[in-house]
Amino acid sequence: MASLMEDEVFRSFLKYGAIVTVKLLLMGPLTAYYRFTRKAFENVEDAAVHSSKPDDKKRLVRKDEDVERARRCHQNDLENIVPFVLIGLMYSLTGPDPSWALLHFRVFTASRLFHTVAFIHALPQPSRGLSWILGLLTTLSMSHSVIHSVIFH
Amino acid sequence: MASLMEDEVFRSFLKYGAIVTVKLLLMGPLTAYYRFTRKAFENVEDAAVHSSKPDDKKRLVRKDEDVERARRCHQNDLENIVPFVLIGLMYSLTGPDPSWALLHFRVFTASRLFHTVAFIHALPQPSRGLSWILGLLTTLSMSHSVIHSVIFH
Amino acid sequence: MASLMEDEVFRSFLKYGAIVTVKLLLMGPLTAYYRFTRKAFENVEDAAVHSSKPDDKKRLVRKDEDVERARRCHQNDLENIVPFVLIGLMYSLTGPDPSWALLHFRVFTASRLFHTVAFIHALPQPSRGLSWILGLLTTLSMSHSVIHSVIFH
Repeated sequence: MASLMEDEVFRSFLKYGAIVTVKLLLMGPLTAYYRFTRKAFENVEDAAVHSSKPDDKKRLVRKDEDVERARRCHQNDLENIVPFVLIGLMYSLTGPDPSWALLHFRVFTASRLFHTVAFIHALPQPSRGLSWILGLLTTLSMSHSVIHSVIFH
Repeated sequence: MASLMEDEVFRSFLKYGAIVTVKLLLMGPLTAYYRFTRKAFENVEDAAVHSSKPDDKKRLVRKDEDVERARRCHQNDLENIVPFVLIGLMYSLTGPDPSWALLHFRVFTASRLFHTVAFIHALPQPSRGLSWILGLLTTLSMSHSVIHSVIFH
Repeated sequence: MASLMEDEVFRSFLKYGAIVTVKLLLMGPLTAYYRFTRKAFENVEDAAVHSSKPDDKKRLVRKDEDVERARRCHQNDLENIVPFVLIGLMYSLTGPDPSWALLHFRVFTASRLFHTVAFIHALPQPSRGLSWILGLLTTLSMSHSVIHSVIFH
């Protein structure tokens, strides 16, 4: 186990894997912040915190575009960051070239940080689309490397 | 590989990681149960199992609050349990203090079991909110430890 | 680390784990393809690519059944493939019987490939339901094995 921590690629994976997972996790509090400030809830017991009148409670269970945007960004992170961490871990254990691996981890991390900025601020396309595709290609490149390593082992 | 199983922290991780992942997986059958008993489906071919009349089929593709609540609980599990398992695995491999690691795993597992009960039974807030935050802080604490370990290696 | 790649079960896990994760990732481009061809978007800045008239932009932010079907299939993959990869990794590290492990990985992979075909083409039930349950049982069987290995270590 100590030997894993001695491995340069594995340490890089831990660093960038933890950074993007924390980024994913922080989408939860961001959505909660929008729900509170926009007063737009999904559950009647959450709306009840803001008003005890039955009519108000129903009125506060509603959709808000800022909340929905944060929710969609969170979903896109789940769809892309989770596969990156899964594939990144597998990839790190197949003994890839350290500088090539580091490039993959850095490009993915940068693409997802930009993706979040582009999503939340609704930047004109193709900014968000390109950052999504760049992250996707990075993970697919690592997946290809994993499958190649196993077949030609 | 055998050496990983000899490690106390790694064995604890396997145990609690598997328990919370099974908990996440069981949300699928729970949602299916609500769909069947409330007769509320998302796909027309699922509604067709309950009725062959075209009008009925369309009527059964509808939203039901019990189904939506189970679905939202499932989604919250995806957003929180998956990052916990990813970070928990990384954390276990950085050689943390065993009793401190076990505390993290147990607090997270307990917080998520309570979160599900609070969500499905619509318990008054802040019960669900606090259990969500507790689980989140546990994962963020482990993430901090992973990043710290890599930097100060 | 090199010793992990020497392990037959771990190599099988890498192969099937990478295949199903790539399958999950490709649901993103598939959904994007349906959004473009059906002209049904979630974000106003995406609709703006297709038309600069304010009325058109609002009209193109709409739901389409083909898009929603791909989206639901993607969500089901997140709910099932991600737990499989997490549990599959843990399971591979507990030293299971190689042919038994390979059977689990192959059954899961086949069940999910069939599930996608059944979902996208709206095949009559119970085809999709049975493939979902088969994949679920495979992951639960591996989870049971992980917890059993830890307790009886």
